[in-house]
Amino acid sequence: MARMLRTIEWTGGAVRLLDQTRLPTETVFVDITDEKQMHDAIRRLVVRGAPAIGVAAAFGVYLGVKDFRGDGTLFTFTSRLNEVCDYLATARPTAVNLFWAIGKMRRAARDAGRDSRALDDKLTVDLIKARLLAASQEMLEDDTRICRAIGEHGVKLLEELGAARNGAENHVLTHCNAGGLATVQYGTALAPVYVGAERGLHFHVFADETRPLLQGSRITAYELKQNGIPVTVICDSMAATVMKQGMVSAVLVGTDRVAANGDVANKIGTLGVAVLAKHFGIPFIVAAPTSSIDLAVKTGDEIPIEQRDGREISEGLGKQTTPSDVDIYNPAFDVTPADLVTAIITEHGVVRPPYEEGLKRVVAHSPSPGTPGEGRGEGPA
Amino acid sequence: MARMLRTIEWTGGAVRLLDQTRLPTETVFVDITDEKQMHDAIRRLVVRGAPAIGVAAAFGVYLGVKDFRGDGTLFTFTSRLNEVCDYLATARPTAVNLFWAIGKMRRAARDAGRDSRALDDKLTVDLIKARLLAASQEMLEDDTRICRAIGEHGVKLLEELGAARNGAENHVLTHCNAGGLATVQYGTALAPVYVGAERGLHFHVFADETRPLLQGSRITAYELKQNGIPVTVICDSMAATVMKQGMVSAVLVGTDRVAANGDVANKIGTLGVAVLAKHFGIPFIVAAPTSSIDLAVKTGDEIPIEQRDGREISEGLGKQTTPSDVDIYNPAFDVTPADLVTAIITEHGVVRPPYEEGLKRVVAHSPSPGTPGEGRGEGPA
Repeated sequence: MARMLRTIEWTGGAVRLLDQTRLPTETVFVDITDEKQMHDAIRRLVVRGAPAIGVAAAFGVYLGVKDFRGDGTLFTFTSRLNEVCDYLATARPTAVNLFWAIGKMRRAARDAGRDSRALDDKLTVDLIKARLLAASQEMLEDDTRICRAIGEHGVKLLEELGAARNGAENHVLTHCNAGGLATVQYGTALAPVYVGAERGLHFHVFADETRPLLQGSRITAYELKQNGIPVTVICDSMAATVMKQGMVSAVLVGTDRVAANGDVANKIGTLGVAVLAKHFGIPFIVAAPTSSIDLAVKTGDEIPIEQRDGREISEGLGKQTTPSDVDIYNPAFDVTPADLVTAIITEHGVVRPPYEEGLKRVVAHSPSPGTPGEGRGEGPA
Repeated sequence: MARMLRTIEWTGGAVRLLDQTRLPTETVFVDITDEKQMHDAIRRLVVRGAPAIGVAAAFGVYLGVKDFRGDGTLFTFTSRLNEVCDYLATARPTAVNLFWAIGKMRRAARDAGRDSRALDDKLTVDLIKARLLAASQEMLEDDTRICRAIGEHGVKLLEELGAARNGAENHVLTHCNAGGLATVQYGTALAPVYVGAERGLHFHVFADETRPLLQGSRITAYELKQNGIPVTVICDSMAATVMKQGMVSAVLVGTDRVAANGDVANKIGTLGVAVLAKHFGIPFIVAAPTSSIDLAVKTGDEIPIEQRDGREISEGLGKQTTPSDVDIYNPAFDVTPADLVTAIITEHGVVRPPYEEGLKRVVAHSPSPGTPGEGRGEGPA
């Protein structure tokens, strides 16, 4: 499936990001040239979606050191690299892909340092820089491959569950955006829809608008429309009604972090959708590249939840919608307990409950599994 | 409890409405002088909330005939009155209070006609007009008394359920606005909070913002703040999280219509909240003046659900938040099945499941129960 837009592109000197804060009315790209701009872009959701955040952060690490000279010693360069990694790890706290990607960059640097033990400091630093760029580019390419694999496994799962039938209109509901615009291409939760559509299956997607930042109405609806998939936007509060009316045969969502026991952190509102799906007997399916699986975290209770500015709720839409100075609670994510999750789709296959063993298996299967906890810097408190 | 604002007031020549479309940033009143303006005010949600709509419609009937002359015959006047009633009944389809109030006005006119059998047409018409004004004013006063009674019964119920304890902070969650601004004073769902506060109970309310029209963040938060009750605004999608965290000890909502079996129509999103409350073991309580109970409707399936313009979702907040021409589904209400409802509070006491008998009892207890179906005109299809 040809994509009209790429969320992240390496231009040779800068990272070109589709500015997702401007969707759906404006298609604007921004060129990011240093780690501060990248930190800001991740924090402000110019780039968003756990997989895309990971790739963006990797490039951010490279941008932060690519022109660094210092005193020319490897020691100073390494200090600088660690500073950049620690700094970028503070951009957002919940998506583990951020830490996973930064961890991969630290390892790429360490491996390069080891491989160049015979070289002088300057050549070593040059080699590390080259490897960091290569690692970023590899993550960019891996992402597409991984999403594609999730799509393949996902279609098969939907067929098994009776939620994707040839010749029928297959209705799925999604929350937030875990589509192509949350990744480099294809997406995670929407990958089964795109791969299924290539094979002639007809999908129709209900997109929760996803308050407060409306990733569903702004981004999911935008990309599905661009890609020719029928989509209906609903308010988050309408999911119960469409489910009750029998209009949804599966829920597909992404995730920012999966704990070892299968608890799933995702955009605020996902927990509610999962409870509804259980009540109405609808499969609730999570798409998770193995980079989203954090075996270092035993249960969802240990996943830090980002609290965001209340003004996203009170003034986020260009107009004040609460009285002044009213108390507002704005957690950006929630945790869906494993017992509400029907299955987790990864690039290495579908994991079903109980999740502990299956998640270990797919992470072990991954060519370069993240070392638990690595890349976290001070920890995302 | 002194109220700073009245939602509906009779000035002697006009009905003064607080324009709720301007909240929370502007406090503007509009004077309504004919039935067309009242129809428009109800349709555009200048006045909203099932009980307030009923009172407003009653005054609308009076305004529609008060200066009518025609050919001076009782026959022509009665035709005009019926036209006005039928017309106002088309303003909104779901809230039964609208039809209930119009039905009361028709009966007031009929009774006046009977009482004046000896009089000539002109005097009869004058008497009917006077009785229509009196009936409207009576409904206005009744509303405050009814809400107060709901508050009294509600506090007792919350105490029984352990959701209102002396000396504790009692957290309740509400959806949409069934507060003072949905009625003339006190409100229905919030009446227990106001009455409880008068008695020294501490309440803290989580107000769902209630997309798409944000009655929770605009109106509920506004009135609670005005009345000194601590309130926290959340997005609808956050209710699951606050419940999971044990931060809610009861859900209180209003209703636009209760069916004979206890199914409850209320603002879109209520069904989702009810499912969540059941999942997390939290009492789900509906406040319903008997005027909201429609025994003519057997189950919620028979309640017509108003579909509103998709632009309320895509452009309702001053900024386009979906791609152009995307499909949008915008039902204004949903139906919560009786088995998710812990109790229904009426002005004549609390009804518990199974609801059939209890609802019949409280409606029979009501001094002037609505005759089923009366006042509906062509029917709110």
